[in-house]
Amino acid sequence: MAASTGGGVGAEDVVRNKQVILRDYVSGFPKESDMQVTTGTTKLKLPEGSTAGVLVKNLYLSCDPYMRNRMTKRDPGASYIDSFNAGSPIAGFGVAKVLESANPKFKQGDLVWGRTAWEEYSTITATDSLFKIHNTDVPLSYYTGILGMPGMTAYAGFYEVCSPKKGETVYVSAASGAVGQLVGQFAKLSGCYVVGSAGTKEKVDLLKKKFGFDGAFNYKEEPDLDAALKRFFPEGIDIYFENVGGKMLDAVLPNMRVHGRIAVCGMISQYNLEQPEGVHNLMYLVIKQVRMEGFLVFDYYHLYGKFLEMVLPAIKEGKITYVEDVVEGLESAPAALIGLFAGRNVGKQVVLVSRE
Amino acid sequence: MAASTGGGVGAEDVVRNKQVILRDYVSGFPKESDMQVTTGTTKLKLPEGSTAGVLVKNLYLSCDPYMRNRMTKRDPGASYIDSFNAGSPIAGFGVAKVLESANPKFKQGDLVWGRTAWEEYSTITATDSLFKIHNTDVPLSYYTGILGMPGMTAYAGFYEVCSPKKGETVYVSAASGAVGQLVGQFAKLSGCYVVGSAGTKEKVDLLKKKFGFDGAFNYKEEPDLDAALKRFFPEGIDIYFENVGGKMLDAVLPNMRVHGRIAVCGMISQYNLEQPEGVHNLMYLVIKQVRMEGFLVFDYYHLYGKFLEMVLPAIKEGKITYVEDVVEGLESAPAALIGLFAGRNVGKQVVLVSRE
Repeated sequence: MAASTGGGVGAEDVVRNKQVILRDYVSGFPKESDMQVTTGTTKLKLPEGSTAGVLVKNLYLSCDPYMRNRMTKRDPGASYIDSFNAGSPIAGFGVAKVLESANPKFKQGDLVWGRTAWEEYSTITATDSLFKIHNTDVPLSYYTGILGMPGMTAYAGFYEVCSPKKGETVYVSAASGAVGQLVGQFAKLSGCYVVGSAGTKEKVDLLKKKFGFDGAFNYKEEPDLDAALKRFFPEGIDIYFENVGGKMLDAVLPNMRVHGRIAVCGMISQYNLEQPEGVHNLMYLVIKQVRMEGFLVFDYYHLYGKFLEMVLPAIKEGKITYVEDVVEGLESAPAALIGLFAGRNVGKQVVLVSRE
Repeated sequence: MAASTGGGVGAEDVVRNKQVILRDYVSGFPKESDMQVTTGTTKLKLPEGSTAGVLVKNLYLSCDPYMRNRMTKRDPGASYIDSFNAGSPIAGFGVAKVLESANPKFKQGDLVWGRTAWEEYSTITATDSLFKIHNTDVPLSYYTGILGMPGMTAYAGFYEVCSPKKGETVYVSAASGAVGQLVGQFAKLSGCYVVGSAGTKEKVDLLKKKFGFDGAFNYKEEPDLDAALKRFFPEGIDIYFENVGGKMLDAVLPNMRVHGRIAVCGMISQYNLEQPEGVHNLMYLVIKQVRMEGFLVFDYYHLYGKFLEMVLPAIKEGKITYVEDVVEGLESAPAALIGLFAGRNVGKQVVLVSRE
């Protein structure tokens, strides 16, 4: 039955398998202690009779804002993605090496990116969500970011949802993050004027000096967000790439231009609140005839090939740059994930599990 | 210079001209006493040298929710439509008869609908916003509603913004109003399941018995709007036609289906508040990948011919019905307009100024 292509690993090989376990469901701001790093063992062998799964060694794991939603206890099917299982390893995107495969699409030694778990070795049965990595002349960790889910998110949200036109004005919040830094660079490549906001001077400097934003500001130092936006967008905003929600969205709405577009990628400022903040200025959707659209990257994976064709050469030619914040070891993973919600990361937050 | 086609009216004819004047700008809930009915006179003659205007006798005037926005003092250009001029007649849509024309597009005796003023006789210089009425085998007052701006609003919002598909579920708030009653009937003609809400038993009965909604409820008698929506939409809402905003929008968002659409036509529940209510559930735009789009009918007038081709036969064949709430005389106009915001009107609110 099983089309196993395993071979390099003996059936009885038992190895250490560190894991990052979600202790229990979270309400409010998550803490490192909501997770626990354990050291167990695992057999380096797919279960008998596996017909489609792969056994992988995880190399890089991705910390993404949407993961906060999975830490909240919800009924299955209540959100677009189910809650984590308390007591089990955190699930998330990562880059991994195939050790054994029962799936003819993958073979031992393949590098893949997609949905895996926060541990050293994982058995992945939902292989539909794995992409084979063909280009290895870029940093492998990029497949957690610019070449992976966040990259596709930026691409789909900006090009497909916002339909940018040359000369339009673009505003990106959480602009130095995994998605925002790319949206800004895509906007520049499209001939747009782009301004980003972030929460530290270091990040604001990155936006201007590294990513080529036309302007950038530290939202924490702006007592009046409306005034800040008017300073950078005296003629208004054509495209808002929404990553934060709440007060920022309320400040943006009256500053939108007629027929503007808002791509709602996420609302990180709201994820740890008991109740999300109220947004008061929605009537500006009518006044300015604005389209506001929530999207999930999963709807756009059919564009992944087209996306790579655009972004791989751009990386190699230095037209697009990418900043990562890499911590080493699963022990560092809980703090890295929590840090996202405090804005501690500078650039895409990655956990290096193993170099090979 | 003036291509006047006048003739039936003597140059020195002076007639009574009642007017409804906006006394002063309004904040909060408008009152009848914010307006004043005056009786003056006017010469039935276009000013010397007129090159494009028309002199009309107003027959029907339209009370529309958007007019509340024009009662607030704002800087010119601050909204999609400028404030009224305090001390001058209320401006609005109406049906009128041309008495004299300096514009070759119109001639004496023509019936028109479009932007006029709340008075017996008006000189209209912005004739771009006037449509000639060719079909008079329907009630003339319909050109303030189903065959005028509200009709086009329902048509554009439902067909163009929401892109309905057969079998989809549609929810309409303020469903017995000028726009809502049509959206519900368009939805039925498109093979959709449609539920509406309104604020009295009489209106709810209209929705079910007259307009053919599949379901209807009185939102004032529902202590839990979320539960009410779940009762009517156990599988969720594909299309929400938004007329009210605030708490209703917040209740709708978690009940939207994946890839749902929200056409934001207006937010009447918010117009008289000092600060609009906060909407908390916008993250559902992402969770359900919902598109929410504000629109103004002015962007869609190029479809007016196509719209008439659909809706005129439907009226004549009894496939679409229309309910108006007609008051008689300019003296009744202030109360009729105020009544919109208390939900006193049943159906489209019209003021009959003169039968011919």
